[in-house]
Formats: sequence, C-alpha cells, structure tokens
Amino acid sequence: MDYAKESLKLHYKWQGKIEVTPRAEVNSKEALSLAYTPGVARPCLEIQEDLNKSFDLTRRWNTVAVVTDGTAVLGLGDIGPEAGMPVMEGKCVLFKAFGEVDAIPLCIRSKDVDEIVHTVALLAGSFGGINLEDISAPRCFEIEKKLKECCEIPIFHDDQHGTAVVTLAGLMNALKLVGKKLENIKVVTSGAGAAGIAIIRLLISMGVGRVIMTDRTGAIYKGRSGLNPIKQEMAEITNQDCEKGALADVIKGADVFIGVSAPGTVTKDMVQTMAEDPIIFACANPTPEIFPDEAKAAGAAVVSTGRSDFPNQVNNVLAFPGIFRGALDARASDINDEMKTAAAYAIADLVSEEELSADYILPAAFDRRVKDAVAEAVKQAAINSGAARVRQ
Amino acid sequence: MDYAKESLKLHYKWQGKIEVTPRAEVNSKEALSLAYTPGVARPCLEIQEDLNKSFDLTRRWNTVAVVTDGTAVLGLGDIGPEAGMPVMEGKCVLFKAFGEVDAIPLCIRSKDVDEIVHTVALLAGSFGGINLEDISAPRCFEIEKKLKECCEIPIFHDDQHGTAVVTLAGLMNALKLVGKKLENIKVVTSGAGAAGIAIIRLLISMGVGRVIMTDRTGAIYKGRSGLNPIKQEMAEITNQDCEKGALADVIKGADVFIGVSAPGTVTKDMVQTMAEDPIIFACANPTPEIFPDEAKAAGAAVVSTGRSDFPNQVNNVLAFPGIFRGALDARASDINDEMKTAAAYAIADLVSEEELSADYILPAAFDRRVKDAVAEAVKQAAINSGAARVRQ
Repeated sequence: MDYAKESLKLHYKWQGKIEVTPRAEVNSKEALSLAYTPGVARPCLEIQEDLNKSFDLTRRWNTVAVVTDGTAVLGLGDIGPEAGMPVMEGKCVLFKAFGEVDAIPLCIRSKDVDEIVHTVALLAGSFGGINLEDISAPRCFEIEKKLKECCEIPIFHDDQHGTAVVTLAGLMNALKLVGKKLENIKVVTSGAGAAGIAIIRLLISMGVGRVIMTDRTGAIYKGRSGLNPIKQEMAEITNQDCEKGALADVIKGADVFIGVSAPGTVTKDMVQTMAEDPIIFACANPTPEIFPDEAKAAGAAVVSTGRSDFPNQVNNVLAFPGIFRGALDARASDINDEMKTAAAYAIADLVSEEELSADYILPAAFDRRVKDAVAEAVKQAAINSGAARVRQ
Repeated sequence: MDYAKESLKLHYKWQGKIEVTPRAEVNSKEALSLAYTPGVARPCLEIQEDLNKSFDLTRRWNTVAVVTDGTAVLGLGDIGPEAGMPVMEGKCVLFKAFGEVDAIPLCIRSKDVDEIVHTVALLAGSFGGINLEDISAPRCFEIEKKLKECCEIPIFHDDQHGTAVVTLAGLMNALKLVGKKLENIKVVTSGAGAAGIAIIRLLISMGVGRVIMTDRTGAIYKGRSGLNPIKQEMAEITNQDCEKGALADVIKGADVFIGVSAPGTVTKDMVQTMAEDPIIFACANPTPEIFPDEAKAAGAAVVSTGRSDFPNQVNNVLAFPGIFRGALDARASDINDEMKTAAAYAIADLVSEEELSADYILPAAFDRRVKDAVAEAVKQAAINSGAARVRQ
C-alpha cells in the first residue's frame, strides 16, 4: 500500500482525527441548570476551596496536553507547529485507544525555550500531565527540565523516555537470553538526540556500569574538545575508563550496541569485534544502523529495530499510554526514574520465559495486556517513590 | 430542586463534562500506519507547504479554545483558573451540543494582560477560533483588542459580544412591538462591565444615535472627572448632548433602559418618567435591576431579564454557538461588527410578526432553528465583509 497517498486521502476524509464529546447532557432547561449555570457555581467553589478537587470535578484527572513546537516532527525535522498537528492528533488517538487518556494537541508558535516553558507552565492547571512531543534536541532537554521544576504535574518527553523505557525493556529480555546481567555489560551507544540521551540516563539509573556514548567523531569522553553542553554532561556520567577512538574502536568487546542515530553506522565487521552473543538495537528509522540479517550474519544474538516489519520493534506505544495511565491514576506530580524503570520491567515481564526468543524480546504493539501491566507498575512506583498524591 | 447540591453530585459522577474521542481507528498495524507513522508524514508535509491546509487535514477547522484566567467566573468573581474550569467545560458542552463545535477549555495561571495575550497568541495555530470567557473588565477589553491585532483567527469575548448580540436582537423585536426605530430612540444603560460596554458599542454600530451610559455616580459624559480609560472612551462615543446627573435624571424620556449592573438599580418611579412604551432590559443576575412585574406596573411595554424563569431571557446560548459555527464555516479571520449585527438580526427574525408579543421577543434557548439561522447569517456577513477565507 502507498501509505503516504492513502493517509492523505484519509486525512481529508477524517477532517481531524479527534473531536470533543460531551459527557453531560444539556438538552433541557433543567439539565442546563445542572451542567451550567446556576448549578455549576457549586463545583467551582469547591475547587476554589481545595485545588485538588479540580482532579475530581473536572476532566483534569484524565487529560494530558500533547505539546510540540514542530521542530523535530518524525524524521521530517523542523516543519513548523501547524504542520506537526497531524502527528499530534495521531498521538492523541493513541493515548485514548491504548491508554484511555484524553489528550489534547497543542502546537506552540515559538522555538524559544523559555517562551515554550512559560506557555506550558501557565496552562498546567488545565491538565493532569504534559506530554512533550517532537521537540528538537538539545532544546527538548532544557524545556523538560525547566517544566519539571515549575509544574506540579508530570512532564514527559516521549521521544526521550518512551523510547528509553521500551529499549530497556527489550534489553533486559535480550540479556536473559544470552545469560548476562545489566551490572556487568558494556554498552556502546550512537546518537545524541532525545532518545539517545534518555537511553543512556536510564541505563545508568538502572545500574549499567559501562556505557560509552559515541557521535560522528567517535567516543565521547571527559575532556574531549568541542563537546556541546549535553555531550559534556554525558561525558561526566559515562565512559569511566575514558576510552577514545572511533565507534569501530570502542565497540570492540561491547555486549550491547544501541543506535538511535543514522543508517549504516554499524558494519558487520564491527559486530564481529563485539563480545560473545552481542545484542544490537538498531533503531534509526526507517533505515537502521545495520539491518537484522547482516547483524545476525555477523554473529548478533538478538537484533531489535524501530520497524514494525522486523521482529522486536521498539515501539513507544508499548510505554507512553500505560505510563500516563498509571501516573494519572496515582495523580502523580512527576514521572520519575523509578516509574520509568517500573514500566520497563513491566513490559519485559510480559514476555514469559517460555516465549522468550531472539525474535520475541518485546510484546507486540497490540498486546492488550501491556497498558494495564504498565499502568499498575507505574502507579505503584509513583506511590513507593513519593510522586503519588493518591495512596492506596 | 437544589441545583447547587445536585450539580455537585453530578460533577463527581461525570468526572469531567467533556472527553476527547478518536475519529480515526488505530486497531491494526495498517490502521496505525495510516493515522500515524509512516503515513501521517504526508499530511504534515502538505500543511508545511500551505498552512491553510491545517484547516483541511486537522481538526483546526472546527476547534475553538475556551480561554479564561478565572477572574470573573459567573457572579463569583476572581476564583482562580482551576476553579473556573467547571464553567469552561460546561461552555464546551454547549459549544458541541448547540453549535457542533469542538471546544477545548484552557485556564491560564496569570492575570497579566500581556502574558495572557502572549500565551493565547502562541497557541493560535492549534485552533480555528478563540472564545474568551469570564475574564474581568477592563482587562478583557485590552486582551481581546491585542489578540485581535496579532491573531489570524477570530477572537470573541462571549461575555461581551454574546450578550450584546442577544440584547440587540431582543431590542429590535421590542422596538417593532412599540413601533419605534433604532435611529430615533434614546437608550440609557447601566453597568461598565464586559457586557455593558459591548452593548453600547454594538448599539452605536447599528445606528442608535442617543446612548447615555451611567455608573454609580450617574451619567458618563466627556470631561467628567475621575473616569477610568474605558469610561473615557465611552464618554467620547456616547451622550452627544452631554447630559449630566444621576440615572434618575437621564432616564427621563428614554425609550430604552439596558442594565447589566446591580439589583434594584431602577425604580418604578424612574420607569414612569421614561418615554411612552418604555422597554426595559434588566439583566443583572440573578436579581435584576427591576423585577418584570414592577416594571410593567410602572408602564413598561416590554421587559427582558437574564433569567430563564421570566419571559424574554437574554441567553448567550442563542448567539455564540451559531456565531462560531458561521465563523468557522467561513474560516473567518475575525468576528467583526457586521457578523455580530447579522447574528442579532438572524435571532430577531426567528420571532415572526404573528408570534411577536411583549412576552416573546426572543426565541427560546432550545429553539432548534437558532444555530443554523445564526450560522448562515454570520457566514454570509463574513463573506460580505471580507473576513472569510472561504468564498461561496
């Protein structure tokens, strides 16, 4: 099927992929007096007295804003806020279909970090959470950080953390297959975009000791000249042995390669120099860092990509609907590392020991068990980590 | 019925009066590839090439933001943005039920005019129109004016213009009953809030020559000391004869009194000093400036209030759903005076000459003809006045 052509036709037909539906009736004078004036004054006053009641008496408890500035839309780059809207509406459809979350797309006409932060912060009272989407690096890091500091609701940049959670889930299952442990492995990554950075941070928070990040120049290490601020930050927390050289150099002996970079970054030769039973996440989309058949021919034990036409797809839809469902159910003030880690374990655990194989390390996108499993794990983690406002 | 108590109970049950519903399916790999990646890239690129396509390929064509800062919610005053949300959600329900418009409530955590303007302006690409709601005067005037200057979509403060349109519709029918014409009447108003100011402006734009505005001090006239900026502006365009004195003085000989002020502002004695067959709009809510029975006893030919339990209710629901429906259908860049006037005439014309009586100058809130009549008139006015982007 020509997806582009067919999708365009459908978008003209849909005239928008979401709509707003009333949950209250206003079909009589009496109904109007209850859903609107004069009756509505009472719930208003209840909220004025206790702001938390806005999570009981309005849709806030279930509503997330999907916010973009249109600077990193899919692989299309900076196409502008309005042009990003079809993706945002699609995301909102996924939120409802996969997570029963009401999501509202907001595109912001600014590329200025503080302007975006300020705009979202002023709107935070309308929502139970904020999903940042398709905002280019390194601005996305700063925007998320600043919003987390000033908002009392969860801020979650899915391109970072959704991808990181699913990648980690897949990695944990791949490690089971080859009999290795997170603590003992050497991981080499490629790509300093939103996903690349978030994956490294989550790897470290989950206890992986040896992580080396690479860019086009090669390994990133403390003191390398010309590093931008985010790479400097990464240099501080990765590559403790200060390995230097090109990807081909540092990938030697690595147990795991994780790429969210560019097509063809990894060669068969490189895979052959990795440790026994190497694990490859080649998530550049649509063309991976190395194709699964090549990687396997070179000895890879497990290969994962971002594509739905190969096994082991790293698909964010496994993570964000359940993560927000759980965060909203906990009325969480944040989506912290504990909650992300819990989501990764929940996803990984859905693949049973019996089912686990080199071609099945991650549940399928349409596995109906995923949302509830992730939501429950995230909610519990929110409670245990102190991010929850609801305690059960 | 105890509306307050019952409404609160219902709000707990509803858990939000609106929700977001998908219009596209994502229940299979193929459906996902059409509504989301990779297919969605194509509609994104179409919009990037021609921003107007955002009105074809996303829900923007039918979506309005209902924006408040929570400073003038119902009669409750400044209760804060979160506490205003039950009203905003109710408004969104009305938008869909009465106008088939998708409306999204946004409460802004700021009372600063420029901050609110900036926030809304940055979001304008997400919406086909902006409905400002329950923002206190005089900030509401400035916010609306500034937003109209910088946004390419309609900005409409319903508390001002919705009320003005319905009041004018009622006034035109009342004048038919008593055989007077807009051009020849003397109108005295009371109240310098959002509605009061907008009513005066619309009266003038529709050709009423003699309008006198009063506040607690009395008639407002050019040169009166201590006038705030908005009253100074009104002094410039009203009261050409520079009448001075209290309401009781200037109401003498008036054909029409329009109050959006405070209970009991008008006495029977005052009504008795008005011209023959005086017309009274006593729209203070819930207690009017004068009750209908008193006004009639004093000789009023027609009395209108803001209450649903008296005849001739000035109810905004007669105006805003059809006005936005028409503006959206025209892809209007503005809701201008021509469009507002057209809406007023359309509402007035729904009461036939045969039906017209002192107790029936306005169609009922649930009259199903209203939305289409108003929408069509507003759309045509948008086309004729050059505000429309769609021409038919």
